[in-house]
Amino acid sequence: MSHRRVETPFGSVEKALGGSATFGALSASHFSSPQVVAVVGEDFTDDHFAVLRKRDIDTGGIERVAGKTFHWKGRYHQNMQDRDTLATDLNVFEHFDPKVPGAFRSAPCVFLGNIDPTIQLKVLDQMEKPRFVGMDTMNFWIESALEDLKMVLKRVDVVFINDEEATQLSGERQVLNAAEKILELGPKYVVVKRGEFGSLLFGHDVCLFVPAVLLSKVVDPTGAGDSFAGGFLGAVAHAGQIDRATLAQGMVYGTVMASFAVEKFSVDGLLGHDRATIDLRREFLQSMTTYS
Amino acid sequence: MSHRRVETPFGSVEKALGGSATFGALSASHFSSPQVVAVVGEDFTDDHFAVLRKRDIDTGGIERVAGKTFHWKGRYHQNMQDRDTLATDLNVFEHFDPKVPGAFRSAPCVFLGNIDPTIQLKVLDQMEKPRFVGMDTMNFWIESALEDLKMVLKRVDVVFINDEEATQLSGERQVLNAAEKILELGPKYVVVKRGEFGSLLFGHDVCLFVPAVLLSKVVDPTGAGDSFAGGFLGAVAHAGQIDRATLAQGMVYGTVMASFAVEKFSVDGLLGHDRATIDLRREFLQSMTTYS
Repeated sequence: MSHRRVETPFGSVEKALGGSATFGALSASHFSSPQVVAVVGEDFTDDHFAVLRKRDIDTGGIERVAGKTFHWKGRYHQNMQDRDTLATDLNVFEHFDPKVPGAFRSAPCVFLGNIDPTIQLKVLDQMEKPRFVGMDTMNFWIESALEDLKMVLKRVDVVFINDEEATQLSGERQVLNAAEKILELGPKYVVVKRGEFGSLLFGHDVCLFVPAVLLSKVVDPTGAGDSFAGGFLGAVAHAGQIDRATLAQGMVYGTVMASFAVEKFSVDGLLGHDRATIDLRREFLQSMTTYS
Repeated sequence: MSHRRVETPFGSVEKALGGSATFGALSASHFSSPQVVAVVGEDFTDDHFAVLRKRDIDTGGIERVAGKTFHWKGRYHQNMQDRDTLATDLNVFEHFDPKVPGAFRSAPCVFLGNIDPTIQLKVLDQMEKPRFVGMDTMNFWIESALEDLKMVLKRVDVVFINDEEATQLSGERQVLNAAEKILELGPKYVVVKRGEFGSLLFGHDVCLFVPAVLLSKVVDPTGAGDSFAGGFLGAVAHAGQIDRATLAQGMVYGTVMASFAVEKFSVDGLLGHDRATIDLRREFLQSMTTYS
């Protein structure tokens, strides 16, 4: 969970509700019933909790402690892809020791949001044989905590990563080679996110591509990646088995939810869409890539 | 037609056979029987003609005149997308007055390669009601010959353009908005080429996306765009009617031929592949984007 100050060419918001867990859970809530494990400060209000609960998200694993919520301040460039981090205040994240409630430990599907890999491992250690685990990471951890990160990679089914991070982690420039190198580190699947250029899923016997939804305006790219992961894992959690079709649905729903997320500031894009609106975008993506 | 000196991070070639007409015709020759109208200098050898004739390309419209063939010298950056033009010598292009042989004038399908739009118009004026016309252009003509370019745009079925050129021509940053603005200029379809990120086709009632073929090594990106256009128009010329399925086949075969072109220096990637190899890549593209 985090509070953010975001500036984009279309305006800015203060104290926006944000964070991997928030975007991920709100996105997944359209497909399954997420339970959140996170830490927030005293400035995380009842209104913030209400946004999550309204979407039937179990907030029983959100710990509220003394201090301020994690705060990120950034400014997006005109292309809405590049961004400058203006400030990162760990605040309550600094001593976060995640405790997974007993009722959450048998969850079949787990998303490890972008955080210190040692914290990701602590969460994973408390889970009882989840069927499917996804993880996110970022350049900061690749640079500063590579060995810990590799321990997490060995234990997950899918890693969500962007183009630059894939190159950084693998030393390979071509996405095909980068994905192969990352698969050697342990995950069953690698999803490479490329913003407006879509996303790719690589596995040892599967390769999928989903284009981004074409938008006439992108307002706030923050949270696109977490919304993607939430939609992906929500769809996978909802499905009966992990096969090619399930992974493809994950990719498509992840893409659709990311497209909703970037159309409005903060998490607003993830609220107010029903399943019919979501499925309209899914159908359009499939029609764009049907060649016969 | 042109002679090129190309440097890429993988090496360099002198006097490579190149040019829109060469790449376009060699690519199209896998699907139909291209006829070429072009001008070359005395340095364009019989061996160069032989490469084209071996692929059953009609070279009856290639004029050989005194002087040197058009020469381009460039250097590609490490990412194989950005390039610096080191030299452009128009040579025989400077006074090119294209004459379309009588036997060529009833061709149903025409590709106007990247050249001065007034020359594109001169070719088009000599054609007898072609069923489908495609054109290429580049930043240089958008800057220096916009009004002439707009006259060509009004008269073609499809314009092939890259992301940057689409933004430059339309003033729009988002590809969806750029394509809409360009459609207003007259062409029935706009194909936006995005290199390793695939390509999009926009029409008033159709929208298609084809991902790029995933390659572990790109040796020479020169000619990718012309190979795309050649494959696209070759497939369209071969098809019976212009409908969604035909356009989709054009996009897919264009993508496949561009992928072969960039795997080797000069035109070598366009030679030596039979239809079965081509169709293997086509099938892979379709499988990557099949979600059920």
